[in-house]
Amino acid sequence: MDEQLLVEEIYRKSSFLCLGLDTDLTKIPKHLLVNPDPVFAFNKLMIDSLCNLVVAVKINTAFYEVNGADGWVSLEKTIEYLNSNYPKIFTIADAKRGDIGNTSDKYAKAFFENLGFDSVTVSPYMGKDSIEPFLNYKEKKTILLALTSNIGSEDFQFLNTNDFKLYEQVIIKSKTWEGFENLMFVVGATKSEYIKSIRELVPKSFLLVPGLGAQGGNISEVFKNGANDHIGILINSSRAILYAGSGKDFLEKSILIAKSYQREMSELINLKI
Amino acid sequence: MDEQLLVEEIYRKSSFLCLGLDTDLTKIPKHLLVNPDPVFAFNKLMIDSLCNLVVAVKINTAFYEVNGADGWVSLEKTIEYLNSNYPKIFTIADAKRGDIGNTSDKYAKAFFENLGFDSVTVSPYMGKDSIEPFLNYKEKKTILLALTSNIGSEDFQFLNTNDFKLYEQVIIKSKTWEGFENLMFVVGATKSEYIKSIRELVPKSFLLVPGLGAQGGNISEVFKNGANDHIGILINSSRAILYAGSGKDFLEKSILIAKSYQREMSELINLKI
Repeated sequence: MDEQLLVEEIYRKSSFLCLGLDTDLTKIPKHLLVNPDPVFAFNKLMIDSLCNLVVAVKINTAFYEVNGADGWVSLEKTIEYLNSNYPKIFTIADAKRGDIGNTSDKYAKAFFENLGFDSVTVSPYMGKDSIEPFLNYKEKKTILLALTSNIGSEDFQFLNTNDFKLYEQVIIKSKTWEGFENLMFVVGATKSEYIKSIRELVPKSFLLVPGLGAQGGNISEVFKNGANDHIGILINSSRAILYAGSGKDFLEKSILIAKSYQREMSELINLKI
Repeated sequence: MDEQLLVEEIYRKSSFLCLGLDTDLTKIPKHLLVNPDPVFAFNKLMIDSLCNLVVAVKINTAFYEVNGADGWVSLEKTIEYLNSNYPKIFTIADAKRGDIGNTSDKYAKAFFENLGFDSVTVSPYMGKDSIEPFLNYKEKKTILLALTSNIGSEDFQFLNTNDFKLYEQVIIKSKTWEGFENLMFVVGATKSEYIKSIRELVPKSFLLVPGLGAQGGNISEVFKNGANDHIGILINSSRAILYAGSGKDFLEKSILIAKSYQREMSELINLKI
């Protein structure tokens, strides 16, 4: 799907919430485990229940790879279900891939062509030719790690390099790449004080903002610093929504949390219009 | 397997060659495609033919993910075949993973516990807590990207950060991490002029050196600058060995190339003893 449609959906649903499907067999309600594919069963229920509250769904590949080939099947079924039933939901493979060109080619083919994701997250460490194979898919989005939400982001991302921090250099350099307009950037919700300067570097780009809930990020802070004239942010929540409940009523609890996020987002969007 | 055994195997086989299984359905000999799992069939033939010439096998996950769940099965069968038949061959999952702690936990479990790899490659961008879950497996090796072989390595890895280049900062910082002794480092063969200073930073650590063959690296240059008193380097070759031939005699051609590498390595090891 193209970016314009994503923007329309944000206004239509009055939400910039992304649902993160970090689906963990050890955390989903026990009564679902009788299902032949409990991960897909859980994902399907979450997607169907939250489809009006979220504009994007992010699938974290680690949680599928840990289940081996069966996990890969759950991943395939989940993205196929989304593409067939909810083509206006923006889909993200949160894979954080990146390798030499001929290898990134294969990752890009896997996630964009074979699985049909709208976007994939990539790591900048190996530079331009590790990202180019993704950018070559003009109708897709490539989401570059810039400033991540975790404590370890302080180890390297904040290093001073010439006049800029490393995470700023990553963004500045990426602006010189062909296909820059297809880039989005990962910026942690826990780093809201830096989002303003990142927004100045990339006024038009979408920011994918993880770190809400379990990690402590704050919606209105992120919005205040990061929203642009087409909103331009997606805030992800995974654990706080997925595991809000663990009994038979788990969906109601997940919906309650997602609704509270969406309501806050709606108020912020309305204030801005 | 532990590092001491790897060192013993290097001396016993007089080789520090790593076979990279970047197995590509579009490049393997056509007559293998009748096999129900041509990727595994090709890998098995390569492993059986080269087992006396190589001390390590590196599986590049991208080439398996591109085949979806079937690809994951080929990967599982390949590592299982290696572990069952060649327990003294050091195995590497070349996955370049790295994410926030709870996600890296899953990747570490997937590659170390479930698949049984001896090691996995990881990307440093997200810092300590993205690597720690791998380092917690004391009997395994975690291979950190430092200076990669590709042209894009110049984009960020050479940035000046205080008194050091970024790739040096990555190595220096990692020396402060608990479990540092379980780290190896990726250093591209195309960067042999920098290997000497990297070796000074980490005199005891193994270096995994890709970039031979198609990328233009040179064995004796890498050895001269990188070998330590227990050799301490693994040089990887993927395409140059795998696709040396494409007809019925493809294995003979692969063996010829691998033997020429091993012979050069043997001479270098003998000169050093």
